[in-house]
Amino acid sequence: MSLFPQSEDDWIARIEARLPVQGRSRSGGGRLVLGIGDDAAIYRPAPGEDLVFTTDMMHEGRHFLQHHPAFEIGWKAICRGLSDIAAMGARPEFTLLSLAAGPWVTPEWIDAFYDGFLALAAHFKTPLAGGDLGRAAHTAIDVVVAGSVPKGEALRRDTAKPDDLIYVSGRLGGGALGLREPSNALALDRFLSPEPRIHLGVALRRRKLASAAMDLSDGLSSDLSRLARASGVAAHIRRPLPVFPGASEADALHGGDDYELLFAVPPSVRVPNCLAGQLLHCVGKLVVGEPGRLLFEGEPLLPAGWDHFSR
Amino acid sequence: MSLFPQSEDDWIARIEARLPVQGRSRSGGGRLVLGIGDDAAIYRPAPGEDLVFTTDMMHEGRHFLQHHPAFEIGWKAICRGLSDIAAMGARPEFTLLSLAAGPWVTPEWIDAFYDGFLALAAHFKTPLAGGDLGRAAHTAIDVVVAGSVPKGEALRRDTAKPDDLIYVSGRLGGGALGLREPSNALALDRFLSPEPRIHLGVALRRRKLASAAMDLSDGLSSDLSRLARASGVAAHIRRPLPVFPGASEADALHGGDDYELLFAVPPSVRVPNCLAGQLLHCVGKLVVGEPGRLLFEGEPLLPAGWDHFSR
Repeated sequence: MSLFPQSEDDWIARIEARLPVQGRSRSGGGRLVLGIGDDAAIYRPAPGEDLVFTTDMMHEGRHFLQHHPAFEIGWKAICRGLSDIAAMGARPEFTLLSLAAGPWVTPEWIDAFYDGFLALAAHFKTPLAGGDLGRAAHTAIDVVVAGSVPKGEALRRDTAKPDDLIYVSGRLGGGALGLREPSNALALDRFLSPEPRIHLGVALRRRKLASAAMDLSDGLSSDLSRLARASGVAAHIRRPLPVFPGASEADALHGGDDYELLFAVPPSVRVPNCLAGQLLHCVGKLVVGEPGRLLFEGEPLLPAGWDHFSR
Repeated sequence: MSLFPQSEDDWIARIEARLPVQGRSRSGGGRLVLGIGDDAAIYRPAPGEDLVFTTDMMHEGRHFLQHHPAFEIGWKAICRGLSDIAAMGARPEFTLLSLAAGPWVTPEWIDAFYDGFLALAAHFKTPLAGGDLGRAAHTAIDVVVAGSVPKGEALRRDTAKPDDLIYVSGRLGGGALGLREPSNALALDRFLSPEPRIHLGVALRRRKLASAAMDLSDGLSSDLSRLARASGVAAHIRRPLPVFPGASEADALHGGDDYELLFAVPPSVRVPNCLAGQLLHCVGKLVVGEPGRLLFEGEPLLPAGWDHFSR
């Protein structure tokens, strides 16, 4: 008995049936002029807007495991792209999803995967506009999210200045803890079902609080080093860090998969303790120095977060 | 000795160095306001335009083999997306590339892969705006191409009418022949290095010749059935088909990887024999009937092209 009696077209129809009505029709509705089913989606932006695009790939054995729940894998797949959109201060507009299903993938797994993906997509009113679907030796997922932002207002990572303060949202290290100790339900939930900080990114942009921003997907040390290098500055980190309950300081410094926001703030700007429902913590400041160089409590710190190539 | 001493950031810098100067800087130039290196690319369209987006995934062992030349794999990876853009009658604007490098992938392979990808990108002035790069158990590639088209003028596949004639560009079956008989240099070249019909797509759109269009990536029988089903019509195919030299009629009917264009033409419209350098052949017509049903020389024909799920 074949687990996959259906053709690709049958599968597309099956996915189409799972879409919210808004995204289901050939004309996706709103600014999405043409949704799934053609060679490409059509998105018609308003004048005076910038569109931003991000793409993130996930692989079996590397970003998720076969025994992880399919719903959460789908959720996390779009969360990663939404988090990038949040880091630009943008609103998500639509998404594209490519799924390569490995031999162990069942129709039920695909259904649950799409359910998780579409649940988070629906929460942020982000229609699925197209994608690609096929079989492969290993399961792989690639997600594109497009977002929009008023012209010229996107939060970039190369626009911070010396003396800007460094802030992070939320508490760090929960993703790393959840990966290491799946018996910790709170941390596992953070690892499997992170929440993209869309509302916080929009608020930072609208209130003009941040001089630069990015998301914390690979770990504070790696991501801050990137932001600092892009902006041509060095960075000093200091205690206390906002550490996720049960996680270590090393988890907070180097652990990935938190999907909080990291942003720089000019010294003259006053930052609230809480914005868009998220706690904001100052963890240091940017200084003149070798671009990307980090000090932690005065000692040199090497970026030791997740590197997509070295492991 | 590790083949990959570099980090992801080193790899991004290495790729950045391979970009044409236009796409290299943080401001990509032109309508690409922000290129690679941030969380997302920023593209600022002109008013009165529609953007179209397509995504295509390729997997080791399925769409390419380890022994295929890396340059051609890179070329074909973007060709598939460009061909979708061509089928919409759009001009390509930028591309995003995600590469998951399997264990056998060397730095030299990645260099040659990007060289092939960027060679075809440069030919169509399509800057690389971002992407994702990492290690995985199997090599996988996902490419997004965004294109632009005057508002409302994109060629869709769901807008053909009964009595429209069915045309294809070029000669069909070369991709299938090249896959089966790699000793046939002409056919192997078609399989490894197909050419997206961008100029033809734009010409069809500008001259208002086509009532609907798509690209032939999976084979005439499968793709025509999709176009007909999307448009709510049936289709009659008749001999002679324009067959690639050395290929069989079955290759032309069912073989994938040709990347020619398939389009419908209202009966009142006169189509030239050659357009934008491509031969155009009438291979049948659309009729009232069960949506997607095919007849070949009067006999029922089942779609038997490449299905991304059933094989």
